[in-house]
Amino acid sequence: HPQRARSGDDQCRIQRLNAQEPNRRYESEAGTTEFWDRNDGEFGCAGLKAVRHVIQARGLLLPAYNSRGIQGTVLPGCAETYETRSQSSTGDREQRSTDRHQKVRRIQEGDILALPAGLSHWAYNDGELPLICVAIIDTGNEANQLDEKYRKFFLAGSSEQEGGRGGQEGQSQRGEQQEFKSVFNGFDQELLADIFNVDSETARKLQGQDDQRGRIVRADRFQVTIPEFDRQEEEEERQHGRGSPNPNGLEEITCTLKLRYNLGSPRRADVYNPRGGRTSSVNSDKLPVLSLLRLSAKRGVLYKNAILAPHWNINAHSAMYVTRGSGRVQVVGDSGRSVFDGEVREGQLLVIPQNYAVLKKAGNEGLEFVSFKTNDNAMSIPLAGRLSALRAMPEEVLANSYDISREEARNLKYNRDELRVFGPLRSKSSRE
Amino acid sequence: HPQRARSGDDQCRIQRLNAQEPNRRYESEAGTTEFWDRNDGEFGCAGLKAVRHVIQARGLLLPAYNSRGIQGTVLPGCAETYETRSQSSTGDREQRSTDRHQKVRRIQEGDILALPAGLSHWAYNDGELPLICVAIIDTGNEANQLDEKYRKFFLAGSSEQEGGRGGQEGQSQRGEQQEFKSVFNGFDQELLADIFNVDSETARKLQGQDDQRGRIVRADRFQVTIPEFDRQEEEEERQHGRGSPNPNGLEEITCTLKLRYNLGSPRRADVYNPRGGRTSSVNSDKLPVLSLLRLSAKRGVLYKNAILAPHWNINAHSAMYVTRGSGRVQVVGDSGRSVFDGEVREGQLLVIPQNYAVLKKAGNEGLEFVSFKTNDNAMSIPLAGRLSALRAMPEEVLANSYDISREEARNLKYNRDELRVFGPLRSKSSRE
Amino acid sequence: HPQRARSGDDQCRIQRLNAQEPNRRYESEAGTTEFWDRNDGEFGCAGLKAVRHVIQARGLLLPAYNSRGIQGTVLPGCAETYETRSQSSTGDREQRSTDRHQKVRRIQEGDILALPAGLSHWAYNDGELPLICVAIIDTGNEANQLDEKYRKFFLAGSSEQEGGRGGQEGQSQRGEQQEFKSVFNGFDQELLADIFNVDSETARKLQGQDDQRGRIVRADRFQVTIPEFDRQEEEEERQHGRGSPNPNGLEEITCTLKLRYNLGSPRRADVYNPRGGRTSSVNSDKLPVLSLLRLSAKRGVLYKNAILAPHWNINAHSAMYVTRGSGRVQVVGDSGRSVFDGEVREGQLLVIPQNYAVLKKAGNEGLEFVSFKTNDNAMSIPLAGRLSALRAMPEEVLANSYDISREEARNLKYNRDELRVFGPLRSKSSRE
Repeated sequence: HPQRARSGDDQCRIQRLNAQEPNRRYESEAGTTEFWDRNDGEFGCAGLKAVRHVIQARGLLLPAYNSRGIQGTVLPGCAETYETRSQSSTGDREQRSTDRHQKVRRIQEGDILALPAGLSHWAYNDGELPLICVAIIDTGNEANQLDEKYRKFFLAGSSEQEGGRGGQEGQSQRGEQQEFKSVFNGFDQELLADIFNVDSETARKLQGQDDQRGRIVRADRFQVTIPEFDRQEEEEERQHGRGSPNPNGLEEITCTLKLRYNLGSPRRADVYNPRGGRTSSVNSDKLPVLSLLRLSAKRGVLYKNAILAPHWNINAHSAMYVTRGSGRVQVVGDSGRSVFDGEVREGQLLVIPQNYAVLKKAGNEGLEFVSFKTNDNAMSIPLAGRLSALRAMPEEVLANSYDISREEARNLKYNRDELRVFGPLRSKSSRE
Repeated sequence: HPQRARSGDDQCRIQRLNAQEPNRRYESEAGTTEFWDRNDGEFGCAGLKAVRHVIQARGLLLPAYNSRGIQGTVLPGCAETYETRSQSSTGDREQRSTDRHQKVRRIQEGDILALPAGLSHWAYNDGELPLICVAIIDTGNEANQLDEKYRKFFLAGSSEQEGGRGGQEGQSQRGEQQEFKSVFNGFDQELLADIFNVDSETARKLQGQDDQRGRIVRADRFQVTIPEFDRQEEEEERQHGRGSPNPNGLEEITCTLKLRYNLGSPRRADVYNPRGGRTSSVNSDKLPVLSLLRLSAKRGVLYKNAILAPHWNINAHSAMYVTRGSGRVQVVGDSGRSVFDGEVREGQLLVIPQNYAVLKKAGNEGLEFVSFKTNDNAMSIPLAGRLSALRAMPEEVLANSYDISREEARNLKYNRDELRVFGPLRSKSSRE
Repeated sequence: HPQRARSGDDQCRIQRLNAQEPNRRYESEAGTTEFWDRNDGEFGCAGLKAVRHVIQARGLLLPAYNSRGIQGTVLPGCAETYETRSQSSTGDREQRSTDRHQKVRRIQEGDILALPAGLSHWAYNDGELPLICVAIIDTGNEANQLDEKYRKFFLAGSSEQEGGRGGQEGQSQRGEQQEFKSVFNGFDQELLADIFNVDSETARKLQGQDDQRGRIVRADRFQVTIPEFDRQEEEEERQHGRGSPNPNGLEEITCTLKLRYNLGSPRRADVYNPRGGRTSSVNSDKLPVLSLLRLSAKRGVLYKNAILAPHWNINAHSAMYVTRGSGRVQVVGDSGRSVFDGEVREGQLLVIPQNYAVLKKAGNEGLEFVSFKTNDNAMSIPLAGRLSALRAMPEEVLANSYDISREEARNLKYNRDELRVFGPLRSKSSRE
């Protein structure tokens, strides 16, 4: 059962939605971090923040944990990364010759990663091209018990406060802003030496006080063995993960469950129209850990001038990130008010509140996007097409509601016979 | 597990409760819509709004969906309506000669309808008398992810903003207020024509721009066949609904589950006292869809001067709507403060916050009411009678707590032997 | 699935945490009640309030119910109390000669009591020493549907408002403050006489208008028989409670389920280090009713100069109450800011927000505490020791993250081989 807290009794006065670029940017030694973290407007109302990391080749995103659930997607760029768990490993007899650590995962373009709140994570790009990750942070999620501020807890490094800069200033401005430090920095150095049973110099390094490399650091030497799965093994792993007993809650879950799902493959399409494109989704049925995060995602690929049927999300907000191309989007709020009617293009994020009706039409280059939804089983109802709300109603209701003839009511119900993805031109259905 | 968000850290300063009439009224071609939608006072604190529709004979309540869960009850007036689902129908081969649509339900006096948030609905009165529906909108419900504003999304028609009028002005004032439009109105007309593959004129009608009929329109021609169930079939349908597999979540649930429960029949009483009256309730055990809505309802029928035992609701707010008669109600808040001591009468709504103690005594005409509760398994603890908190405690606790003798403690525990509905006069129990 | 609402969109600006004494004190005839009930700072952010009752020998804590979940712990003082349930008893044929009432429970030092929201409770101290109870009230819990005010509903007595007094003034100041009354006080006296079928004088006593004894009254005569369980029966009772069918929700649950768990016994330690001390926890696996309350607790006993490994709570706030001794505590917030670095001592309460990292070191007298957590299965991740986040990561990550050698990375991972409770002195592990 999905749930969320809301921002009090003061109402969300959404007059216009905006397709937004990130509002802040932060440069590191081996990459860039950009934020959508405004508290006002539709982002604040929906309780959503977003972050985009661009990790250069040989870049290591430092270990950190967040105060809330995150869902990331991997975007264009042939890249591979490694990922560790922050949970206890089993059977760690310390044979220093072989480094023991928790499972490390390979991720690839099109992957959705589910990162449960409070777990630490890191990522390394061992490919040749930059790795682009977009993460949605659901500050309205009930897993977050404090407030709607986006709190970051770093386990390493020291990074400056990201300022309100436009984003193009580059690395020269680093160090001018308020500092972000690792949590180790807040503990007493001598106590840390005691606790880790190491010398003061190592404790000082653990605190990372002089580190100027930022959030993403260059790691030229990085040898971690990752087993290569074939597809069948992956499937078996998934089955095992679902069926295993779960005596201790989240801790055990995350040691066995799958945290990754690839939405990129056309074979995973839920809806496919050769004239229009396809949509694929991942929800808690496909990736059970999403029931913990109460998030899901849908990927859409629309061909040139194709239309995604107008619909409304009945139980979730939606944050649409454009991964390629551009298109025209219209969003209608309560009382039939138009709140967005414009172009969206690659790299922009558009938040569509729950119950608002939305229509998407691809431009000449097509339109590809990922929509993150604040429900692990988000559902929408189309207003047109074979499964639409109008087709479900008796003709008498349509005729009387719209003050039209029976013939016109029939046309509204049956003239568009496709499912949610419509071909670009007027299609005369076979019955016309 | 029922849950709800609250309106922030600012406290609810409830000094007095009020038995309220609707604060706004809106006239349509074939009916009236009245609203209890104040944001302040106990309504705001409890996160509740309410709407009352009076649908004249041959009136059609236009299709719409709401931003939150709704529970409606059908009130006096021998009437019948039809209702459709907004979900996908199975097996819709389009044979235009026979209109295919989703299941349509007949409703009757005393019915409770559970309308899951975000699903569209409509209603038609094919009876001779007006149909009165009271709907409770739970703006504090976690199914509502945005804010506590009551947002209406119309699929047809155009209706003016309901003003702050007292309610008696009648139809003449329609059109003076801010307009409410259908969601189709917010989309581009040519795009709509494309999407539905219809001509511009039909698209314009779909937008309903010139429609002045309001929310409830007259539909003199309205032929929809509704199968007539007998009671046994209905029971079977219910059994089937509960046992069916549910692979896809809400979508499948609402295609098979029962959304209706009749609280009117005396045979369904949970508590019955021939000297005092009866209470009947519907919760998620009886109507499983209520677990999605996290609401339940109780109907009370008190005879002349009968008393409903003082009690408190341990896990829900209660919104009491008086359907017939009048009575005296007392409500006590924390610290023993009296927050209501007055008369309630037919057509009024009284919100009783969680944990507040309440006592109801019928007037000379008796008192009938429906209480809507913000928990799908609302529970209350009586302060007097056979299952009361006092009877559960040892006599020693009562004697010491109230500084009374053992004999007096025994009287408090045992002198009133009825359950929650007490006869009108002092009853000397058989043991006295 | 644990959940909680938060105090709106306004952020919690936690600059410093404070180890706090109660801020208000209220004297009764046979005991003292003290409150931590500030709405600002970390208490407000975490949605927590706390109460400490000191019940003198022969003192009776009057029946009352609260607007939210409560968890109490019994503290030093060899004492015994009785407790009743406010639920319906089965088979209550009224044989006045033998007083029938619901189950009464004996509690003892080290017990954790889980009191579901809205149920009334009372307690009697039949021991020789004062009984000290500390109760955490989770005002942020979703079981509380109204606001974050701590509302008390008394079933007996009348008690003055607790003022902002320092606490040492004693009984002489009672009566000067705003009055707290029983809920019966808010009802009409004649109606009460009718309802309970008693005379006016008893109804007046029920209202407790002249009662000046306060919240805890002396009860010299108090004969209630409590069966003495041996450990095996207790275990059987628990098994029975878990396995029983639950047709009616909370009402049945609380009639059969265990509400008590003893955290005092060293045999129940989850982590034990003979050089450092132990921790014991109770969660919904051990005490199923906690899943209703969404709270859990951990007890820690640290020997002289021992250290509890630095860690963060991934899914809960923590309220640490010091039951004996003193120690040094450091807490680090987001961005590595130190928000607490100081001494805590017996009787103080320290709130540690979700995700904040904390380190505890016992003083020369040792340190004992109970941490209440706002999740029925609270989990934490240690930063050092055998199950730490650092040990779970590959050496390559540590070496690159902290800019240290492989040898230093190995030292960080392996030099402290103990679990969460560390011995007081630098331990050179066997591998060094």
